[in-house]
Amino acid sequence: MKPIFLYDTTLRDGTQCENISFSARVKLKVALMLDDLCIHFIDGGWPGSNPRDMHFFNLAKDPEFKNAKITAFGATRKPHINVEDDANIKALLSSAAPCVAIFGKTWDFHVKDIMKNSEKENLSMISESVSFLKANDKTVIYDAEHFFDGFRSNKEYALETLFCAAKSCADFLVLCDTNGGWLPFDIEKAVLDTTVFFNKKYSSGELAKIPEIGIHTHNDSGMAGANTISAVRAGATMVHGTINGYGERCGNADLISIIPVLQLKMGYDCMSTKNLKKLQKCSRFVSEIANMIPANNRPFVGKSAFAHKGGIHVSAVMKNPSAYEHIDPEKVGNSRRVLISDLSGKSNVEYKGRELGIDFDSKKVKSSDIVSKIKSLEEDGFQFDLADGSFKILMEKLTKQFKPLFELKSFMVTIIKEKDRACTSQATIKISVEGKEKITVAEGHGPVSALDNALRKALNKFYPDFLEKTSLVDFKVRVIDGREGTNAKVRLIIESRDEDEIWSTIGVSEDLIEASWQALSDSLQYKLSKEKK
Amino acid sequence: MKPIFLYDTTLRDGTQCENISFSARVKLKVALMLDDLCIHFIDGGWPGSNPRDMHFFNLAKDPEFKNAKITAFGATRKPHINVEDDANIKALLSSAAPCVAIFGKTWDFHVKDIMKNSEKENLSMISESVSFLKANDKTVIYDAEHFFDGFRSNKEYALETLFCAAKSCADFLVLCDTNGGWLPFDIEKAVLDTTVFFNKKYSSGELAKIPEIGIHTHNDSGMAGANTISAVRAGATMVHGTINGYGERCGNADLISIIPVLQLKMGYDCMSTKNLKKLQKCSRFVSEIANMIPANNRPFVGKSAFAHKGGIHVSAVMKNPSAYEHIDPEKVGNSRRVLISDLSGKSNVEYKGRELGIDFDSKKVKSSDIVSKIKSLEEDGFQFDLADGSFKILMEKLTKQFKPLFELKSFMVTIIKEKDRACTSQATIKISVEGKEKITVAEGHGPVSALDNALRKALNKFYPDFLEKTSLVDFKVRVIDGREGTNAKVRLIIESRDEDEIWSTIGVSEDLIEASWQALSDSLQYKLSKEKK
Repeated sequence: MKPIFLYDTTLRDGTQCENISFSARVKLKVALMLDDLCIHFIDGGWPGSNPRDMHFFNLAKDPEFKNAKITAFGATRKPHINVEDDANIKALLSSAAPCVAIFGKTWDFHVKDIMKNSEKENLSMISESVSFLKANDKTVIYDAEHFFDGFRSNKEYALETLFCAAKSCADFLVLCDTNGGWLPFDIEKAVLDTTVFFNKKYSSGELAKIPEIGIHTHNDSGMAGANTISAVRAGATMVHGTINGYGERCGNADLISIIPVLQLKMGYDCMSTKNLKKLQKCSRFVSEIANMIPANNRPFVGKSAFAHKGGIHVSAVMKNPSAYEHIDPEKVGNSRRVLISDLSGKSNVEYKGRELGIDFDSKKVKSSDIVSKIKSLEEDGFQFDLADGSFKILMEKLTKQFKPLFELKSFMVTIIKEKDRACTSQATIKISVEGKEKITVAEGHGPVSALDNALRKALNKFYPDFLEKTSLVDFKVRVIDGREGTNAKVRLIIESRDEDEIWSTIGVSEDLIEASWQALSDSLQYKLSKEKK
Repeated sequence: MKPIFLYDTTLRDGTQCENISFSARVKLKVALMLDDLCIHFIDGGWPGSNPRDMHFFNLAKDPEFKNAKITAFGATRKPHINVEDDANIKALLSSAAPCVAIFGKTWDFHVKDIMKNSEKENLSMISESVSFLKANDKTVIYDAEHFFDGFRSNKEYALETLFCAAKSCADFLVLCDTNGGWLPFDIEKAVLDTTVFFNKKYSSGELAKIPEIGIHTHNDSGMAGANTISAVRAGATMVHGTINGYGERCGNADLISIIPVLQLKMGYDCMSTKNLKKLQKCSRFVSEIANMIPANNRPFVGKSAFAHKGGIHVSAVMKNPSAYEHIDPEKVGNSRRVLISDLSGKSNVEYKGRELGIDFDSKKVKSSDIVSKIKSLEEDGFQFDLADGSFKILMEKLTKQFKPLFELKSFMVTIIKEKDRACTSQATIKISVEGKEKITVAEGHGPVSALDNALRKALNKFYPDFLEKTSLVDFKVRVIDGREGTNAKVRLIIESRDEDEIWSTIGVSEDLIEASWQALSDSLQYKLSKEKK
């Protein structure tokens, strides 16, 4: 199978998407996940353009990337200056990334009308920038911005810009459909023409080797995926894209869909069969971290991608899945959704039960009953893989081993705002422990914080010192289905820690305070029961 | 320009989408909108399969469809019965639709292994069903289910099924990629082979005319659009699809993207220039009625489709839009948007200012002052590219053009929980408008919803009907830095819509209710000030 080099630009082009912004630390998390997926090149951002991206490259120096080359992005040098004086180019070097990608102008209209530059100076900018970076031992990827529009407008000049980069020994020449307006058959023809051009240059001895061609597309015509695979058919060996196709305007090519098309349908080698199975997880991970609602209809990995609704379809699929499925969903880590029997997932639950020391047999509890209870909670929006603490408590409840260490009698939270002054929040709570009641009141930054403070104050009477080392380290709120506006159901996760452990708890409700209470009380129950032992 | 027949199946295939269900009356609304858009054929559903679809056809008898033919969908007759006795076929006739579409089996595997039928009987079912419907004066569209899979498995048989339909005088033969697994170059080749087949049959006198070919694709490989236009290139003249690509699994071909590609980029005639401008409205209308969140990144019509974020892009677009836009957004009823973010600079703000009608010079406000104010708010966690509504209000404030349409005097929100019972939330709010005060109280699902309800109730006194069509469509909460636990700062975005616009507003605070208040009051201020004009 012909190998394909995957170039992920979620951390740069992806963050150009209207609703996405990543901190440097979050970028590192995503980069490590992409490395685990065996993406070949990870574009980390533009160190010359903003401090956040430079911060990322500093963070990325430490961990070991096993498979991927971290890549710093920038532009060719500015007109009429020495390449070694260009701030942008200097930033690329100081990023310490082993690979750099620089874009240059291909389209004569852009060179002249937008940049007010001469065509000749533009060629020097390309040659000198690539040569300088190669001389500094970088793998160099040259992004020909607006290649296809340039090719249509002035084919000779567009190819000349590529030739400059190739002569300067760029490792990859990437043809970009920057405006996203091209169609697959036209892309295929243009890439073919380009490969013919380079074959000629090689035959005539003007080039020492035929350069590797890459393809970078945007989805403005809904064709980013088709344009990418058409370019690969015509000879491109590097594929640019982002996870879930996140990107500016209508997005970039979606690696999550393109990889299985290339691998399963066209016979190219993008990654191992094992890594292919990680695609769904990877798609979910990035949508979660970007706080974007996962698209149910996403090809290959979406929740609905192999869901069967019509009766005829379901019965046909039961006879033979290929009746209405184009591939086996497991190949990409997805699964068929029909009416799933409660048998699935049993082994997971039993495994986790054992882990928590729960013996189902002696407790006379059927693990299939537990599975169906969990499934029904998951239908409601709970997600126990995100909340080990709550999962333990749930298992205790379902196996009748739960011992509540406090009981809520009531709480009241009041939030008051006067004109432009900030809100004030106050919580009163009454709990009981072994029949003894305690009522406390506390303030906080907002209602959840006030409730947290009041509950701790009350618990402190019964369990002095138990909670001293416990703190909340993370707090995540996610609207499960935004379509209900302020009535939407939210999923709230609290991450807590003490000196030697971190645990997560979850709450789900249309009411944010109710959800907070569930997660908060689970968290403190978890900690108290640990201390009791 | 070569004419294309558009066949919309939003009302049938679209409702196979996991979260979509239409009543008969809603279907009629959509059908009238599609008629106004000059869609040629509107598939109203399957009268033989459920009473709701039959109800739709009854409703559709009354209004006058000026442009579209209402089409009833069904299947070829069942095996081994007389066509006139088939309940399904009878339902097609009693629907009174002038056009019928019936699907038949093309793939030998389906005929034999799934249907347990003989290949020969399957051919008779096709011929007799088409002939019978033609004899009843219907326009007949024959859908060759799984055509492409059948073509790959047994080309001769697949073409034979089509030939049966053609001999029986079907008006259109539609080639379906039912499982959605095909790729554009393979589709193009298969459609070409099919047209060659029919040309031969015509030349040899076996057919009185060459049939019109249609294409029906699904998006399981992310290629539905590309597959459709590739089939058109190869000679197909009828295009099937749904509005926004809604459909089962990964959806159908999206007419909203395909029409402008065919019309603006490939020189086909789908509809008038005037109707093309209705595409955005039509897309929004159907997403509204289906209660699906509109995809911001939808090609051509999405909110982000012509949005520019990076500073370099913005300054280039200001010189010449074609620098980073593949078409003029107005051609499809969309418009350019400039986003404000920490990646961008002065040129974005100036552009945005002009868009909002703010003249910096006359107001003696320096755009660089505004940029630095925005940057400092962004440091605090605001993100104005996510919140155009709040940005407009901020700009008005910074240029001293802000006219508050209500003033908050105070609010109080109370949340009470008793033991295991669900929380109850109540909000009391006092506002004033031009010196007149109003105090109201309301309940809600949680504190934000209660506050929202109370504020609307109060505003309704001063601005009756202004807010009637306004609803909150999305609600996102994001913890900016989770490490502070329940004291973490949150960023809250509210997306609101009325009949013709979607706007977003933002709030940032350590206090969730404070953040909600900011976003909520901005949203209603935005709407009221729009209505005032």
